[in-house]
Amino acid sequence: MSISPETSRTTTDYQAADAAHHIHAFVDQKALNAEGPRVMVKGDRLALWDNDGKRYLDGMSGLWCTNLGYGRKDLAAAASAQLEQLPYYNMFFHTTHPAVIELSELLFSLLPDHYSHAIYTNSGSEANEVLIRTVRKFWQVMGKPEKKVMIGRWNGYHGSTLAATALGGMKFMHEMGGTIPDVAHIDEPYWFAHEGDLSPEAFGLRAARQLEEKILELGADTVAAFVAEPFQGAGGMIIPPSTYWPEIQRICRKYDVLLCADEVIGGFGRTGEWFAHQTFGFEPDTLSIAKGLTSGYIPMGGLILSRRMAEALVEKGGVFAHGLTYSGHPVAAAVAIANLKALRDEGVVTQVKTDTGPYLQNCLREVFGNHPLVGEVQGVGLVAALQFAEDKATRKRFANENDIAWRCRTLGFEEGIIIRSTLGRMIMAPALVATRLELDELVDKTRIAVDRTAREYGRL
Amino acid sequence: MSISPETSRTTTDYQAADAAHHIHAFVDQKALNAEGPRVMVKGDRLALWDNDGKRYLDGMSGLWCTNLGYGRKDLAAAASAQLEQLPYYNMFFHTTHPAVIELSELLFSLLPDHYSHAIYTNSGSEANEVLIRTVRKFWQVMGKPEKKVMIGRWNGYHGSTLAATALGGMKFMHEMGGTIPDVAHIDEPYWFAHEGDLSPEAFGLRAARQLEEKILELGADTVAAFVAEPFQGAGGMIIPPSTYWPEIQRICRKYDVLLCADEVIGGFGRTGEWFAHQTFGFEPDTLSIAKGLTSGYIPMGGLILSRRMAEALVEKGGVFAHGLTYSGHPVAAAVAIANLKALRDEGVVTQVKTDTGPYLQNCLREVFGNHPLVGEVQGVGLVAALQFAEDKATRKRFANENDIAWRCRTLGFEEGIIIRSTLGRMIMAPALVATRLELDELVDKTRIAVDRTAREYGRL
Repeated sequence: MSISPETSRTTTDYQAADAAHHIHAFVDQKALNAEGPRVMVKGDRLALWDNDGKRYLDGMSGLWCTNLGYGRKDLAAAASAQLEQLPYYNMFFHTTHPAVIELSELLFSLLPDHYSHAIYTNSGSEANEVLIRTVRKFWQVMGKPEKKVMIGRWNGYHGSTLAATALGGMKFMHEMGGTIPDVAHIDEPYWFAHEGDLSPEAFGLRAARQLEEKILELGADTVAAFVAEPFQGAGGMIIPPSTYWPEIQRICRKYDVLLCADEVIGGFGRTGEWFAHQTFGFEPDTLSIAKGLTSGYIPMGGLILSRRMAEALVEKGGVFAHGLTYSGHPVAAAVAIANLKALRDEGVVTQVKTDTGPYLQNCLREVFGNHPLVGEVQGVGLVAALQFAEDKATRKRFANENDIAWRCRTLGFEEGIIIRSTLGRMIMAPALVATRLELDELVDKTRIAVDRTAREYGRL
Repeated sequence: MSISPETSRTTTDYQAADAAHHIHAFVDQKALNAEGPRVMVKGDRLALWDNDGKRYLDGMSGLWCTNLGYGRKDLAAAASAQLEQLPYYNMFFHTTHPAVIELSELLFSLLPDHYSHAIYTNSGSEANEVLIRTVRKFWQVMGKPEKKVMIGRWNGYHGSTLAATALGGMKFMHEMGGTIPDVAHIDEPYWFAHEGDLSPEAFGLRAARQLEEKILELGADTVAAFVAEPFQGAGGMIIPPSTYWPEIQRICRKYDVLLCADEVIGGFGRTGEWFAHQTFGFEPDTLSIAKGLTSGYIPMGGLILSRRMAEALVEKGGVFAHGLTYSGHPVAAAVAIANLKALRDEGVVTQVKTDTGPYLQNCLREVFGNHPLVGEVQGVGLVAALQFAEDKATRKRFANENDIAWRCRTLGFEEGIIIRSTLGRMIMAPALVATRLELDELVDKTRIAVDRTAREYGRL
C-alpha cells in the first residue's frame, strides 16, 4: 500500500502494529485484524484523510463530537497556551484554577437560569456514573434514601462503564460485566417499530405512560430518577413523537422523580438549540454532557445540576464523596472555553437552527422521502436518520436490516462518506459548521450509497 | 486580595465565581465556599504559584500524576502538533490512527513480554471499569462464566465511578450511590495498624492468606480476580511487608484467580522501576494505568492485558461490547508518547532508582526516624509516607490522627509545601524529575510543618 505524505509508514505496517497491541471498541478484534482498520491521518473541517490519501466527508462528527469540525487552530492554540501555563491541577486539595472557573461562567451563561452547578468529568460515561451517585446522594440529603431506583430505557445509551452500561438498555452490553442493583427500564418511543395502528402522537403518550406504570409498579417512594436521551443517539437516532416529552415531564413531577437528560450527543447545538431538551420542550433536573463540550479535541464531560439539586447538595450534603483526578482539567477547560466561544460568537448554533439544519432536513426528505429502501426520515438540526423498511405503509422492517445497513455504511466508506448504521437505520450528524455545499456533498454521497445498497438488495 | 501577574482577576472574584457554579472533589462544598479555595495559576517543574503570587513546592505531583513536573514545552508541542493534524478520531468505525499505534508500540517496548494488548480509557476509574467488564468477559470466553467475583481490599482505591468505587474499599464512598454485586473485600496489609505482636513478615503472610480464606469461602469457581494496588496510594501510601506479594501470587495461581494490579499511582517510574509490581516482585495478569502515562497533561488511562488474556479475548471473544468515545484519543496518545520518551531518554526512571529515590528515602529516615510525632517512615523511589503515632514502640496511634495530619497538611501549605494527609499519615510523591536540591526543600519544609504540628499538639 502507499505511504501518505502525512506519515512515513505504510498502512499495512500500521495495521500490523495496531493488531499486535490494541483492542478496539465494539468490534470482533480477530475479524478487524484480518480486515485491517483504516488509518486516519489528517482532518480539516468535515474532511478526513486516511494513510492512503483517500478523502472522506465525515458525516458523524467523529463520534458525534467534533461540532466545530477538524483543524481548528484556535482550539489548538487554547490548549497550547494552557499546557505551558498550568498543564494540570486538581480539585481535591481545596484548590481550583482560572480555566475551570471561566468555563463554568461561560457554560452557565449559555444555560437557562434553572441550572447552577457543574461536576466535571472526562467523558459521558463518567458523567452518567456521577449522575447515578449524585442522584442517590441527593435523595439521601432530602431524607428519602429509599429513593434509589434509576429508570432508563431499552436501547438507550449512557456509556460503557459498568453502571452507565446498566442504566443504558443495550442488553449485549449488560452481558459483559453485569449490571447494578436498583435499575429498571421502560421501552423506547420508537414509533416506526411499533406494530399497532396508533398515530405517532397516540403512541408517544402510550410510550410515556410506561414510565407511570413502572413508577407505580416499583412504588414512587423507591424511584430516584428517569434518565433518557432527548433523542436516542447510539440507539438509532430515534426522535420521539411530540407528545412524549411533555407527558414524561408531567409524570416525573407528579411522582417527585428526577428527570435527567443525557445531552452527551444532543448538547452544544446539535438540534439547533444549545441543548436538545430545549428543542423538545422540557426542563430536566440534570444534564449529562460531553462530546460537543470540547468538540472532542480534549476529553471532557460533566454533570449539570439544577439550582434546587445543587443547593441541597451544597448546603446540606456534607462531604461529597466523589472526585476524579482530571475533574475540571485545565487544558480540557481551556479548549472547552475556546469551543463554546466559537459556537456562540461565530453564530454556529444559530446557523444550524435557522439555515443549515432546515436545509439538511429538507434535502433528506426530498431525496429519500419516496426512496424504495427508506421508510421514514427523522431528524432535526444537523442530526438525522434514514429508516430502512421493506414496506413503508405498514412499517414492515427487513428481517436482515442490520446487514443491509452495515452494507450501506461500507459502501459509504467506498464512496468517501462516513455515515453510521444502527439496527436498520443510517445515521448522520455532521459538524455544525457544515456549509450548504458540504451538506450537499453529504446528501449526494449518501444517496449514492443508499442507491447502491438498494440495487444490491433488489429494491432499485 | 492581590492580583497575580498571570491573571487579571482578584482571588476573591475567582472564588466567588467558583462557588457559584462548581462542585469540587471530596469536600464539604459549603465549608470550602466559606474558606475559599486556593487559585492555582502557574506551574514550572515542581513549583506552583497561586493567584496571590505565593509559591508552593508540589510534593504530590499534582495528584500523583505530573511525573515530569509542570512546564514541559515538549509535551505542549506534542499536543499542539497533534491538535492541528488530527485532533480526534474514534476506534469504533474499524478505524485507527498513527498516534495510538505508536503509543502502543512504545508502551509495550517498556513492558515485560508477558503483556501484549491495551484498551485505552480517559482515567484510572475508567481503566478499572474496563477491568471488571473485561475480566468477567475473559472468564465467559474461557467457559467459566460463574467466575465473576472481584476481590478488592478494604481501604483500597480504584476510582470514583460506581463499580470502581465498589471494588475499592472506602466505605464512605460506597454509601454514596451503592455498590455492585459480586464484589468482596479482604483487609489491607497495614502492619503499623496491626495490634498484635507479629513481625512485619509474619503479618504479611497472614494478610495475604486472608485472600485464600476468602477464595475458599466464596468457592474458587466463583472468583474472577484479585485487584489491588502494589502499594496503597489514596489509602495512605501503605507498603506491604516483603512476604505479602509472593504469597498473594502463589494463592492466585493455585486457585486460577486473575491477579490484577492497579498501577494508576505506582506506574511510570514512581518506585524506580517502570511499574510498581516490578519493584515488589510479582507478575500481574492486568495493569490498570493512568496518571503518569501522560504526566496528567491530557487525561488518559488504560488497561494492559497479559498475552494469555488478550489472545483468548481476540481469538475467541467475538464482539468486545465496550468502547469509549475518547478511547485512544490522538492528542492524549501524542502527549503520552512524548512523556514516555522523556521518562526513558532523559533517564528519569533510572535516576529515581539509582539516585533520587534512595536519596529521598535516606533523608526522610534521617530526619523523621526518631521524630516524636512519627512512628514509621515508609517509602520506595519517590513515594513516601510518615506514620504519625502516639507511641512508636507499641504502634499506638493518636485517637485524633485525622485532625493532626490535616493540621500538618494545612501548615505545609502555609510553609509553601504541598503534602497530603490520609488518616494519620502524611504522604509525598514529588515529580520524578526532582533534583536532590528540590528534594532537600521538600524534606526541609516537611520537617518544619511536622515540627510545628508536633509543637501544637505538645509533642515537641
